[in-house]
Amino acid sequence: MYTPLTLEADIMKKAEDFSEWYNEIVEEANLTDKRYPVKGMNVWTPYGWKIMRAIDTHIREEFDSTGHDEVCFPLLIPEDQFAKEKEHIKGFDAEVFWVTHAGLTPLDVKLLLRPTSETAMYPIFSLWVRSHADLPLKTYQIVNTFRYETKQTRAFIRVREIHFFESHTCHADFEDAERQVSEDYDILKRLARKWCLPYKLLKRTDWDKFPGAAYTVGIDTVLPNGRTLQLGSIHQYRDNFSKPYEIKYEDDDGQHRYAHQTTFGMSERLVGAVVAVHGDDKGLVLPPDIATIQIVVVPVLAKGATEAVSEAASKLTDELRQAGIRAHLDERDIRPGAKYYDWEFKGVPLRLELGVRDMDKGMVTVVRRDTGKKQQISRKGVADSAKAALGAISEDMLAIAQTTMDGRIETVDTLDHLPDSMVRAGWCGSEECGHKIEDITQRDIIGTPIEDEGFKGLCVVCGKPTTTPVYVAKAM
Amino acid sequence: MYTPLTLEADIMKKAEDFSEWYNEIVEEANLTDKRYPVKGMNVWTPYGWKIMRAIDTHIREEFDSTGHDEVCFPLLIPEDQFAKEKEHIKGFDAEVFWVTHAGLTPLDVKLLLRPTSETAMYPIFSLWVRSHADLPLKTYQIVNTFRYETKQTRAFIRVREIHFFESHTCHADFEDAERQVSEDYDILKRLARKWCLPYKLLKRTDWDKFPGAAYTVGIDTVLPNGRTLQLGSIHQYRDNFSKPYEIKYEDDDGQHRYAHQTTFGMSERLVGAVVAVHGDDKGLVLPPDIATIQIVVVPVLAKGATEAVSEAASKLTDELRQAGIRAHLDERDIRPGAKYYDWEFKGVPLRLELGVRDMDKGMVTVVRRDTGKKQQISRKGVADSAKAALGAISEDMLAIAQTTMDGRIETVDTLDHLPDSMVRAGWCGSEECGHKIEDITQRDIIGTPIEDEGFKGLCVVCGKPTTTPVYVAKAM
Repeated sequence: MYTPLTLEADIMKKAEDFSEWYNEIVEEANLTDKRYPVKGMNVWTPYGWKIMRAIDTHIREEFDSTGHDEVCFPLLIPEDQFAKEKEHIKGFDAEVFWVTHAGLTPLDVKLLLRPTSETAMYPIFSLWVRSHADLPLKTYQIVNTFRYETKQTRAFIRVREIHFFESHTCHADFEDAERQVSEDYDILKRLARKWCLPYKLLKRTDWDKFPGAAYTVGIDTVLPNGRTLQLGSIHQYRDNFSKPYEIKYEDDDGQHRYAHQTTFGMSERLVGAVVAVHGDDKGLVLPPDIATIQIVVVPVLAKGATEAVSEAASKLTDELRQAGIRAHLDERDIRPGAKYYDWEFKGVPLRLELGVRDMDKGMVTVVRRDTGKKQQISRKGVADSAKAALGAISEDMLAIAQTTMDGRIETVDTLDHLPDSMVRAGWCGSEECGHKIEDITQRDIIGTPIEDEGFKGLCVVCGKPTTTPVYVAKAM
Repeated sequence: MYTPLTLEADIMKKAEDFSEWYNEIVEEANLTDKRYPVKGMNVWTPYGWKIMRAIDTHIREEFDSTGHDEVCFPLLIPEDQFAKEKEHIKGFDAEVFWVTHAGLTPLDVKLLLRPTSETAMYPIFSLWVRSHADLPLKTYQIVNTFRYETKQTRAFIRVREIHFFESHTCHADFEDAERQVSEDYDILKRLARKWCLPYKLLKRTDWDKFPGAAYTVGIDTVLPNGRTLQLGSIHQYRDNFSKPYEIKYEDDDGQHRYAHQTTFGMSERLVGAVVAVHGDDKGLVLPPDIATIQIVVVPVLAKGATEAVSEAASKLTDELRQAGIRAHLDERDIRPGAKYYDWEFKGVPLRLELGVRDMDKGMVTVVRRDTGKKQQISRKGVADSAKAALGAISEDMLAIAQTTMDGRIETVDTLDHLPDSMVRAGWCGSEECGHKIEDITQRDIIGTPIEDEGFKGLCVVCGKPTTTPVYVAKAM
């Protein structure tokens, strides 16, 4: 159905040109088809979509189990609803797609394709929230959003149709909204562990926060090229939206108060991050919780024992499946080496090889995708060992990715001769010095840490003593 | 969070005014919120969305297990791609939403919101299908589609943003495409059993088939008001699309041939059908496979035994859950009668009541939503009995719905004094007589059966002998 892998395909080396390596690997591994005739709108092929769906499933599990209700709001937003929150429309004005005609007639009120759903949801929230008893209102949806990106597009990372997760909550007061933000941090931690993705939580500067937010915390990871990739964000809106959209409730004392709101958003960039963080020169490396196929079983057939090996491999696969492992038996009539290459490229975490020699010894050969390490394990109790191996892979992948990311962040006390990596530097917190940092470095302030890092230093611009470091990098 | 149910709410009787009853029940049961400020675009509230997602899950299971790959194609289709198949564009010309601007600039090529995805997918299929080995190509996606309905809109049944399932397949020849159509019939049969929905497969007339199709088979159910509701359709395209979109493959003999294609589509109308077919004057009646909550456990608290009953009810609920049943314990501090009313309205298939008297006897009281039948069953082995009861409910719901639907179809030999129901009448097959049937009855020809019904009669217009009956009804 799709372009078959060319054996020993000449894939760009990740360390040589990360950007090209990324572009090649997402296509060669058939995660996406970029030939759709609209710029920045790609086709989700089966393999890529399965990864996205695994991520969506994790998100649903987390948000369902923390008392959020899944909803689905319409795609099209009337211009007048959109325009109610002034900061918000200013932030999106140049980025939205407009529906102006239906059938052969022009529309009275223009409709825009949601770039995010605040302005679709909040007029309805104002109907749902009536009294204190309706709060907190915790909802989420997984939908596609649309932004007219003018920068260069890149599969999963910068596209114009974006597969998107967004939670929206309403609370009685600022403090309860803050508790939601904390819960979001906890949820994120659990999710990122499944995806083996390290990240930093950085509070955006006031001039970089989400349009309409009181404050924005970005979720960023650092890529091999030293650039940051924003995986998502968590916003505290206070009553900035509830006032124009009239989301009010009657409190116990009979007073009408505006709700305080938060949102949490993530997108298909998570797929891009998994590819970028874990992939290597042999192809994808998928975290076990995401992998469509967690274990591939490859029978190593020998003359005279073809049937016996096939049968044993089939039995082995069944045993793994019964233990709840997503296992696949590769029975194709090609040499085992070609199969190894193929599944390594597709990122399958664990390969089990079964040949006559293994069988004679009551063993199975196991190869880890992340480390390439090969070892023999006992055939008896293989499902338990395989599960343990998947668990170890997951832990090791996260630990290594974390160490690698930490190694890409360097603390500096001057802006001269900056390394390619992300840097941490002292900042007095003034907008003036902030802009100067960005001007001098030609990089962005990604943000300040949400937790005290015990930093003590001087502002790299004005020299004032400060306990706040700022993280500076080029954003992907 | 949502409008609470008014106890003893004054819901319209289903038999009195089906149409009004339907409109009220979808709102009162909180399946949808129709207050979104764009006509025909409604908000999926949590309860409605859960039902839709259960249906989507069934669809995914069926299509995944029959070798279809899930994909996700872009929403926006360039005008020139759309226009390639002339019949198709003619059929949708007046019905599509047009994106003409992005940001502040007009687009060079106008983009339309998919009304269905043939014209988005087939240019890419022409890249995916190269040789005989790429066939059959079996894909599906679950996305929202958009149609500018000018008729009166109705929740789930006629909306402008439609939650939609569509499978698209390519085959080497007509015969293999026909085999796909047969497989689709089998898939549908298994799915409809889960949804307890009876239906008829009726081949549409040539003047009513899908634009671009060689033939269209509609999936129709008959509603209490005698009108038909189309639940979906299965199309044989032959090479009508593969020619303009150049979906060609190299055959074993080196010849290039056009693929033959089929599609199968269903939509959120399934939710509407479940409501319309099974609901009654007490509210929704959900098939057990669809129900978010399959069993609600209501503790009947008595003075002095509150804690013991609560604890026993909690244990009972856990036991049901461990057996894989979606069970919910209603611990709200309201009287049991209010809870019964509430869960009946929400359509929960089975209610388990547990009070002191039940406990003393080692029994549990069980009430079926579909029949209202109440009985006592042994507390021991309750999970098995409950599972059996859910199975029986499912079978009975389908059987009764089937009998009811069959009772709404009447065979006639004249078009005078037609009953309100759907009618079956002889038809010679000529377009002329067909149009006359529609003119005289002021109803639509829904289609002719796909299987021989052993019919023998005369054409109701020209009197020619015929073995083909035609089904005539008003479509919802």
